[in-house]
Amino acid sequence: MGERSHWGWGLAERFPDRSARAALGAQVAAMLGTSELELLDPTPLADAAIPKARLEPRSGLGEVTGDREARIRHTYGRSYRDLVRGFRGDFAPAPDLVAYPRNEAEVERILDWASDARVAVIPFGGGTSVVGGVEAAIGHGFAGVVSLDLARIASVAEVDARSLAARIGAGMLGPAIETALKPHGLTLRHFPQSFEFSTLGGWIATRAGGHFATLYTHIDDLVESVRMVTPRGLFETRRLPASGAGPSPERLVLGSEGALGVITEAWVRVRPRPCFRSSVSVRFREYERAVAATRMLAQSGLHPSNARLLDAREAALNFVTGDGSHVLIVAFESADHEVGSSLDRAIEIAREHGGEPEAPVHRTESTRGSASASESWRKAFVDAPYLQNTMVSLGVIADTFETAVTWDRFETLHSNVIRAVKDAFAAMDRKGLVTCRFTHVYPDGPAPYFTYVVPGRKGRELDDWTAIKRAAGDAIAASGGTITHHHAVGRTHLPWYRTERPTLFGEALRAVKQSLDPAGILNPGCLL
Amino acid sequence: MGERSHWGWGLAERFPDRSARAALGAQVAAMLGTSELELLDPTPLADAAIPKARLEPRSGLGEVTGDREARIRHTYGRSYRDLVRGFRGDFAPAPDLVAYPRNEAEVERILDWASDARVAVIPFGGGTSVVGGVEAAIGHGFAGVVSLDLARIASVAEVDARSLAARIGAGMLGPAIETALKPHGLTLRHFPQSFEFSTLGGWIATRAGGHFATLYTHIDDLVESVRMVTPRGLFETRRLPASGAGPSPERLVLGSEGALGVITEAWVRVRPRPCFRSSVSVRFREYERAVAATRMLAQSGLHPSNARLLDAREAALNFVTGDGSHVLIVAFESADHEVGSSLDRAIEIAREHGGEPEAPVHRTESTRGSASASESWRKAFVDAPYLQNTMVSLGVIADTFETAVTWDRFETLHSNVIRAVKDAFAAMDRKGLVTCRFTHVYPDGPAPYFTYVVPGRKGRELDDWTAIKRAAGDAIAASGGTITHHHAVGRTHLPWYRTERPTLFGEALRAVKQSLDPAGILNPGCLL
Repeated sequence: MGERSHWGWGLAERFPDRSARAALGAQVAAMLGTSELELLDPTPLADAAIPKARLEPRSGLGEVTGDREARIRHTYGRSYRDLVRGFRGDFAPAPDLVAYPRNEAEVERILDWASDARVAVIPFGGGTSVVGGVEAAIGHGFAGVVSLDLARIASVAEVDARSLAARIGAGMLGPAIETALKPHGLTLRHFPQSFEFSTLGGWIATRAGGHFATLYTHIDDLVESVRMVTPRGLFETRRLPASGAGPSPERLVLGSEGALGVITEAWVRVRPRPCFRSSVSVRFREYERAVAATRMLAQSGLHPSNARLLDAREAALNFVTGDGSHVLIVAFESADHEVGSSLDRAIEIAREHGGEPEAPVHRTESTRGSASASESWRKAFVDAPYLQNTMVSLGVIADTFETAVTWDRFETLHSNVIRAVKDAFAAMDRKGLVTCRFTHVYPDGPAPYFTYVVPGRKGRELDDWTAIKRAAGDAIAASGGTITHHHAVGRTHLPWYRTERPTLFGEALRAVKQSLDPAGILNPGCLL
Repeated sequence: MGERSHWGWGLAERFPDRSARAALGAQVAAMLGTSELELLDPTPLADAAIPKARLEPRSGLGEVTGDREARIRHTYGRSYRDLVRGFRGDFAPAPDLVAYPRNEAEVERILDWASDARVAVIPFGGGTSVVGGVEAAIGHGFAGVVSLDLARIASVAEVDARSLAARIGAGMLGPAIETALKPHGLTLRHFPQSFEFSTLGGWIATRAGGHFATLYTHIDDLVESVRMVTPRGLFETRRLPASGAGPSPERLVLGSEGALGVITEAWVRVRPRPCFRSSVSVRFREYERAVAATRMLAQSGLHPSNARLLDAREAALNFVTGDGSHVLIVAFESADHEVGSSLDRAIEIAREHGGEPEAPVHRTESTRGSASASESWRKAFVDAPYLQNTMVSLGVIADTFETAVTWDRFETLHSNVIRAVKDAFAAMDRKGLVTCRFTHVYPDGPAPYFTYVVPGRKGRELDDWTAIKRAAGDAIAASGGTITHHHAVGRTHLPWYRTERPTLFGEALRAVKQSLDPAGILNPGCLL
């Protein structure tokens, strides 16, 4: 694998050259009905601005470095805001040191030292947070900041083929996990959009959303047990398929965002690789009926692996359709049995709501088959964030945000959010695009995912982005949605999260934090 | 509904007369190969021994009573140990007062008063705990104990048919919930064995296990949001189909066993009443192959609503078979589509492992149909605990315990547990029966449920029971199982729970308790 971009999404080599970006810029300008976009170039790594480190590496803590490039590469996640700052060469919040512990003992030593020295520690998985989860915006009172990179704790240590479970190091990246499981005929099947560059530990810390549109939507459902090193010692849960013994200890770790401990390892539930697949695309003229069809599908008990409703704008943006129709993509998969009859019933439901299905696709593959169409789709899906790099270089604000809401409130939320974002565009005196798709659906509600594209005002892109973000977040909160279904809280979503969570749950979390991290060194400013 | 027994399971009128009990006693004696069993009678309510109350009812707290009978009826849950003590007329741990708040304001007032007066408060739903969850074994340092009965907070307050959710008072009993939902064509479909006499709030507090053998096994999965009154105020989560915003606040309430607050209400996920049902019984000669078939079914992604494997002794005890075969009962149900093809595949899996299926049963009912065979089965299921009343009157120790464990450890756990229980019988110089069934199954492991029957030594039944319980619990813990899959921790399972939960999770829970219940008045001695 090539080198990662020091400022943008993914691999550096994937950043298009000027002519390719100019061509895309012309397309985007035409789509948005705006004047030509100015093409900018990123500040080279060598010219990036980074503050002087407040800490020196010290011995006895394993591999710890104050190297300039390592600090730059651990400064940000990959939100739009991170990309813009990195593009401009602004790495002001860089950590002072980067540590690469090889095992839990080294993590413990670092936490001991940091607790004593009042050094903030920011656990770092793949660094793909889009909510400021790994950025050292930690407030006052610390002697410095260490970014704790889990990359060296990364192996599939054990596979229990009978129970369909595997013990995996927290620093392992998505593709490496799949590669290691493949010889066993197994797969974790957790494919967040960040899949290529994010880690198991990061998924657990942020309650990442994955491949399945129904049932096993979050990594939560795939975690059998977890190990987390805290400043007070090891927090290790037991391998159990289920338990009713008190509140779930795993659920305290899931979503803890590095503020309660450093996740080092988990037993996760894996499964045989699917070999039966059936899928269909269905067009709808009316959005309301498309939503109703998706709701009925989510409530049918059919449990599709995919049930993604794209509104007409989203469908056009993704070149799925351009005829103004809304598109519901439905897929089923199984390693055990054919799924055509489930698809037939899904198509029936869609037709009952005015849907016009295309020809369904049924495929049966050997479990060791070659790359399939769904894998091509997955490639397009995981490649999508690359586009944001180019948009940043064109001065275009392009971002996504997401929520979940009960069905009874969805229509109001949908129109409120789109209106709020468009109002924010108008306040910038700009025209832009807002689209919506469902990434996951539940019997009691969908997880709507919004994408927007709007030309920023030159030099004011971050203010514009902040205004749009505030408008969207406020509209979501006022409409009864959650501030995040799977992007996590981090620092960006904190204002809404504070209101969303029960006040007393916030106090309970603070009490837990005080118990596990008495010096308050873990990811300060994040989540709590 | 008739009057509840003051000492035994369920309705008083269902306790058989002496001749019926004597006949059953002869059967049991024959089955166990023991001499005739002596028939005893329960101590009448009027002769029950109850200590003098340490508290007087006071005004301003709503309906609060020091009535002798109310105190007796709130002394125990319905474990074997509870039944024996109640049968003997021993109500030593009776609460001093019983409160029946009508709303959250009254709950708050009681908690305020209790916090100031250092009075322990034990939330009481249906009083069916089998783990000492409602018994005032609270240690020292309290001025007295109030049993807080939620029976007056019991209505279906709102139904959201679009999102398939309903807002239900915590004190509502299972049958009342189903009756209220039925006119909407909806059902909660949570049928623990205690269904008739347990409440929504109790299910949530104890993470009760319900109807579905796969997927939605615990009430956890059916809770959309929850309200809990704590001594610090209201803890209310938001109605959301899902969220990734921090650790789940609902999951802190689920399993909190009355130690963190008083659950008053929840939005729960309901569903249309199923009208398609398919089921089959499959016999196996070899237990190992039956287990393998059940495992393959649990890992198939077919998601049966029932997948109950009875070992040969369990099958005989339930008069399912008497030929020494093990029986796997599989059922599918849906409100949306026929489920025959799923059953066909389940049968194929069973056959691949040597299973001999009986004729499958497929039924299609109008959603308003009359009582079905599965409802008859459910009736037998919920009636089973009545048998324990009779056993107590015969001096026979009859009890159940349960766990969950990963598949790789199941065989060892199964043999270790059965050996440990039989050794405990031998130490009593008695012969008894131990059987096992799976109540729920997961891709990574089953939830084995053990039943045993053994004649107690006269006057020493509680010591004998304690020895058996200890042997079983130790064997489960040593074999990697959880001390409870759905019976909860209460006071009985506390020694094993302390070891099972991560040490630091125990500390985190104590920190939460301190934060929400600073005076430590809520269900002291339970869970923490």
